[in-house]
Amino acid sequence: MGDLLWPGDERAGDLFTDEAFVAAMVRVEQAWLDALADAGLAAPATLAPPALAVVAAGTEAGGNPVIPLVKALRGQAPDVHRGLTSQDVLDTALVLCLRDAMDRVLLDVERSARALAGLARQHRGSVMAGRTLTQHAVPITFGLKAATWLDGLTDAARELRRVHGVLPLQAGGAAGTMAAVVELARELPDPPGTAVQLVRSAARALALQVGRWHTHRGPLTTCGDALVGLADALGHLAGDIALLSRPEIGELRERTGGGSSTMPGKANPVLSILLRRHALAAPGLAATLHVAAATYVDERPDGGWHAEWDTVRLLARRSVVAASQAADLLEGLVVDTDRMATRAREDAETLRAEQRSMSGGPTDGAYLGATDLIIDDILERAARVWSDL
Amino acid sequence: MGDLLWPGDERAGDLFTDEAFVAAMVRVEQAWLDALADAGLAAPATLAPPALAVVAAGTEAGGNPVIPLVKALRGQAPDVHRGLTSQDVLDTALVLCLRDAMDRVLLDVERSARALAGLARQHRGSVMAGRTLTQHAVPITFGLKAATWLDGLTDAARELRRVHGVLPLQAGGAAGTMAAVVELARELPDPPGTAVQLVRSAARALALQVGRWHTHRGPLTTCGDALVGLADALGHLAGDIALLSRPEIGELRERTGGGSSTMPGKANPVLSILLRRHALAAPGLAATLHVAAATYVDERPDGGWHAEWDTVRLLARRSVVAASQAADLLEGLVVDTDRMATRAREDAETLRAEQRSMSGGPTDGAYLGATDLIIDDILERAARVWSDL
Amino acid sequence: MGDLLWPGDERAGDLFTDEAFVAAMVRVEQAWLDALADAGLAAPATLAPPALAVVAAGTEAGGNPVIPLVKALRGQAPDVHRGLTSQDVLDTALVLCLRDAMDRVLLDVERSARALAGLARQHRGSVMAGRTLTQHAVPITFGLKAATWLDGLTDAARELRRVHGVLPLQAGGAAGTMAAVVELARELPDPPGTAVQLVRSAARALALQVGRWHTHRGPLTTCGDALVGLADALGHLAGDIALLSRPEIGELRERTGGGSSTMPGKANPVLSILLRRHALAAPGLAATLHVAAATYVDERPDGGWHAEWDTVRLLARRSVVAASQAADLLEGLVVDTDRMATRAREDAETLRAEQRSMSGGPTDGAYLGATDLIIDDILERAARVWSDL
Amino acid sequence: MGDLLWPGDERAGDLFTDEAFVAAMVRVEQAWLDALADAGLAAPATLAPPALAVVAAGTEAGGNPVIPLVKALRGQAPDVHRGLTSQDVLDTALVLCLRDAMDRVLLDVERSARALAGLARQHRGSVMAGRTLTQHAVPITFGLKAATWLDGLTDAARELRRVHGVLPLQAGGAAGTMAAVVELARELPDPPGTAVQLVRSAARALALQVGRWHTHRGPLTTCGDALVGLADALGHLAGDIALLSRPEIGELRERTGGGSSTMPGKANPVLSILLRRHALAAPGLAATLHVAAATYVDERPDGGWHAEWDTVRLLARRSVVAASQAADLLEGLVVDTDRMATRAREDAETLRAEQRSMSGGPTDGAYLGATDLIIDDILERAARVWSDL
Repeated sequence: MGDLLWPGDERAGDLFTDEAFVAAMVRVEQAWLDALADAGLAAPATLAPPALAVVAAGTEAGGNPVIPLVKALRGQAPDVHRGLTSQDVLDTALVLCLRDAMDRVLLDVERSARALAGLARQHRGSVMAGRTLTQHAVPITFGLKAATWLDGLTDAARELRRVHGVLPLQAGGAAGTMAAVVELARELPDPPGTAVQLVRSAARALALQVGRWHTHRGPLTTCGDALVGLADALGHLAGDIALLSRPEIGELRERTGGGSSTMPGKANPVLSILLRRHALAAPGLAATLHVAAATYVDERPDGGWHAEWDTVRLLARRSVVAASQAADLLEGLVVDTDRMATRAREDAETLRAEQRSMSGGPTDGAYLGATDLIIDDILERAARVWSDL
Repeated sequence: MGDLLWPGDERAGDLFTDEAFVAAMVRVEQAWLDALADAGLAAPATLAPPALAVVAAGTEAGGNPVIPLVKALRGQAPDVHRGLTSQDVLDTALVLCLRDAMDRVLLDVERSARALAGLARQHRGSVMAGRTLTQHAVPITFGLKAATWLDGLTDAARELRRVHGVLPLQAGGAAGTMAAVVELARELPDPPGTAVQLVRSAARALALQVGRWHTHRGPLTTCGDALVGLADALGHLAGDIALLSRPEIGELRERTGGGSSTMPGKANPVLSILLRRHALAAPGLAATLHVAAATYVDERPDGGWHAEWDTVRLLARRSVVAASQAADLLEGLVVDTDRMATRAREDAETLRAEQRSMSGGPTDGAYLGATDLIIDDILERAARVWSDL
Repeated sequence: MGDLLWPGDERAGDLFTDEAFVAAMVRVEQAWLDALADAGLAAPATLAPPALAVVAAGTEAGGNPVIPLVKALRGQAPDVHRGLTSQDVLDTALVLCLRDAMDRVLLDVERSARALAGLARQHRGSVMAGRTLTQHAVPITFGLKAATWLDGLTDAARELRRVHGVLPLQAGGAAGTMAAVVELARELPDPPGTAVQLVRSAARALALQVGRWHTHRGPLTTCGDALVGLADALGHLAGDIALLSRPEIGELRERTGGGSSTMPGKANPVLSILLRRHALAAPGLAATLHVAAATYVDERPDGGWHAEWDTVRLLARRSVVAASQAADLLEGLVVDTDRMATRAREDAETLRAEQRSMSGGPTDGAYLGATDLIIDDILERAARVWSDL
Repeated sequence: MGDLLWPGDERAGDLFTDEAFVAAMVRVEQAWLDALADAGLAAPATLAPPALAVVAAGTEAGGNPVIPLVKALRGQAPDVHRGLTSQDVLDTALVLCLRDAMDRVLLDVERSARALAGLARQHRGSVMAGRTLTQHAVPITFGLKAATWLDGLTDAARELRRVHGVLPLQAGGAAGTMAAVVELARELPDPPGTAVQLVRSAARALALQVGRWHTHRGPLTTCGDALVGLADALGHLAGDIALLSRPEIGELRERTGGGSSTMPGKANPVLSILLRRHALAAPGLAATLHVAAATYVDERPDGGWHAEWDTVRLLARRSVVAASQAADLLEGLVVDTDRMATRAREDAETLRAEQRSMSGGPTDGAYLGATDLIIDDILERAARVWSDL
């Protein structure tokens, strides 16, 4: 991560930073300690996050940051982490950070959706050239184009919400059997049942689902795929905007373009370009999550697990940045309907060729087909995701 | 595709071959022609697939196989394809071929699930060493391992079914407005409404959802992701089996191993290896679908669309092959419970270290935690996907 | 592979087909048998390729096509394959097929280079707008643009030639020790030295380098990377051509555009689009080769090796198709210098903004900088790769 | 980047951090300013890096960090950046940071090579089981295995050195014509010639090659590919070590294993695992560089360029971490030759099956083939890269 080489990174603020990750791990340990304490299996305590430097210093030697964290926390509460394994804490903390990022993403996607719904309504009848395979095809309206972008976002947002809604805790212990916590509860009437209850209790405290995914990584890969699905949708609209901002076309424009180090007056579609950047880079990250998942062996694997951590962080932070940039872009989009109309008029010969071929006679009407119905339908679909759209 | 360089390819038979694709395109044109004819907008006709060579010969010049196909079909029925664009036919035919492949995949995944449920029940109590980061950790049972594999398959199958269930038709015409079909219906009372009805009718005939995704490719990328999710699940279990088949471990064995060209008696875990192969190669294909989707521009893009076709085919066929190989593998899996038990006994010192550390005293019991409850829970989850499991 | 879903596939003809692969494997076995026979270690024989169906039928059971091949060939020559392992034959046959494909690629890249050199010379002074970040920047000439494309091809071709020139045989036997062939030669004075000589002799017969790469896959991954490097160069020029073919720009045009199934007169830049398609899909294939290489273990791995075969084939065939399409595209490229000049004149205000800012005064001259020197330099670099350019 | 989620990241220290990148950009501006000043085209000045926060604050608005940097530097030297464009500075600074990282990588790869050469010599005759497709095949020696790892590193290091040796400056100005600098030099006798000399002079000062690659990205993609080639080689040896460290095999061991948060005494092969992690994640990053390169259009593209920056940084820093971890791993590798020998003896029946089949009689000798010659040959190849090996 870095402000310089991923322009806009600061939009993600402290989401999924090392500090945030320490806090998330402590939150997991606290939720578990509370559950144990409630069951009479540990002394209650309130954990304070140790200094980041302390955790960082011991991470590589242990192979993961949980080992130095737990060492540091045991000074505060001797019963901390009892019954858990490193993976329980790390995976659950990943999920918590990922959820925070997805929450932010969803807020900004909604902002984009509202902007697009407005554009779809406002420009429902703003005729422009439809283009296929780079060439003029038949007329469309800009409202339809905006609605189509919205439809892509609607699909992406539904996927994101779906995977967000089932994010699971990890709590299987060393090899997924919950043996340690059952051992802890051996004096209680139903140790396995107690263990299951403890997991439920911790999951409830963290507002996560109960899960067991120490070796099948669907919960992570589906989140990765959903985030890339969003990147696709953003890349698509950004590509269109960058294209329609070309001086020869000039039908769209970012409100505030980026400048040049040498050419005064140059205004580049910088947000569109930064969105496309994310869309080009995101698939490689999600593919890495799948490669990792595909190579899991044993009850914890020899590399696949470790490959996920920073990959998920990158994908999550970049998604936050992109969602925010997209909302700014769309809220500020300048639409030149005159230029659209002029081009559609000037190129009517081409844009009506299909119509002539269909009717076999003179062309009349706007040849916009079911554009209105389609826009309505897309808005209705979107309103099922975002009410009051 | 090829039998030699992707061993097992013949398991996919004629799914998604060029011949199957021509047939699927004809099926789409037929459904559309029927809808037009029912509305009195075309003369009814029954289409026969043209020779593959005829379609193939004109594909590159037109840029896609629909152009030569339609040319060939127009001799049979002059009204064929009226109101559609190439992308409508090609995308819908992709979806039909993909659905056929996914149907086959789901059948074989169910076969695997049944085998795994059987193994989970049979070996519920077959103790073996749990391993993390390559080292012995705590005891598990082979039934738990089989159940965990099943849990991954259950997740993958749910995703597959979900995306399978919403596969959409494509029918927007040249630029997504349905202008041509509205033009066709211009003499009828409500041309746009008629167009929408025609699409519904064709979708019903093909048992597809109504959709508009000419530029937002979620329907394809989510299928790609779901197939890779399955590949991950199969790669995971295959990696475990290959590993546990090593002579030094010897706890599992494929019923029929592959041979050697020079070493008599060598039995390689060939199905596991071929599954791992698929799992390693699949993420790159799904990533390509995302890269394609992310670079869509205009009302039909300049490369992204074309990049999807063979990529989807490859992923679909290879998924069929893998699902079939997995089912054979799991139905024939040989479990050496003696060897599992012996190793667990011999390495008890290590496998009980955590227990000693938890209890602070001597270790007794199997230290299997909530294994039984977990297996039951996984079987129950799976039974919600496959009844009578 | 398929003519329909990868338009242009037929350009690759029978390169790297299953038939070609059987022939290549037989060629490897023959070269080895000849070497053995020359050393008095085998009875000489001339091998005939068995029927493809015979090889295909036994491929999955054995895990690779060499096992059924050898079984079939032993009827012809009992000493065939003695001292080799499956991987020796398969890897070397992959290399032979890859080399044939690269030979064809290099021929067509040269055709493209000649076309580009011609365009660079012819349009050395054809002024057009330079564009950065989608906006007009400063003037360039089309000759410079063509030269820049050429420079990319020159780099790509040098890489291809470099890796092509060091393609190695594989001949290490079961675990890379050449134990079997040393055993064969045990009656001769210097068995290990004899084994080394046999490998050299077979390598010479196949015009390959001596190599040992059964577990380090640089020879394949560098070829994959070089082919993707070519795809990048082709994607870059195709993207430019597709863009400059847009009706609003209209500075370039493919001689023969692709048609439309419904819009008479539409001419799409179909070759550019098909090139971009390849460029979007190729990186995922090369990444798979790296994932495979990265997961090699033992003296032959449990999946990585098998993942390479069809991946290499696809990348090779698609590269042949793309190189051929690119040459056709560039040989037929139509350049509209009037339109270029008109735009540069009309947008002089913007295109000269930097110059005004540099000179602080009125702008004169063409503001083309060192364009001529750069074109000369690029042509000279290219001429070191292709003489008489 | 982060110490917690990419354990070992601190090994890369301040290589390619934001601070290092600002320093590199300033170094580029200084070299250029010096060249201009020497030619009498600018007032000489010594530039001091502005505060990182100043650069960061303006990065997104401008679309890249050069714009705020130049703004800040102009207060120090009004002539700074004259004749350059943002891309010149950013690309050259990327190359400088990449070179620093590659320098460090090469040092540590040499450390690994020396360790491996030592192991190859020491264990030239330490017999162990060779394994293929997970099963025992024929005997090898551990010296041969170490030599084979070395051979992979030798190939990777040669590639790295090759691409490192031709790293180019970027200096084409706004659209690659060097128009601005030629304009600057318009009062001198030969402005284009002067421009070329200025570029040479700046390149010399930075010890880079002269280059023009603003739209063909071979210089970056080949570096990316070479770094992934190294990752493959490290992944391969790490996978072998992790595997041979399994308790059931126990032939290798890391000197200092990682611990467990709950299981006292557990020693995980943590460095091997962290190396495998890098090898699994690196291919996705290099693929992103290719996707970016493949989508370049115009004289500076609309997203591809921006996608490269952080991707190169990640790949470079992770490569530094991995090379350092690998050297530590190999220098500390514990080899249990007794266990190797015992296994080879106990499984002689299997390991000699091929020999029996070759000789048709009793088996004698070590059946190690040309192992000694191969080790010598690999050591010799390596010594051509690292003398005094």
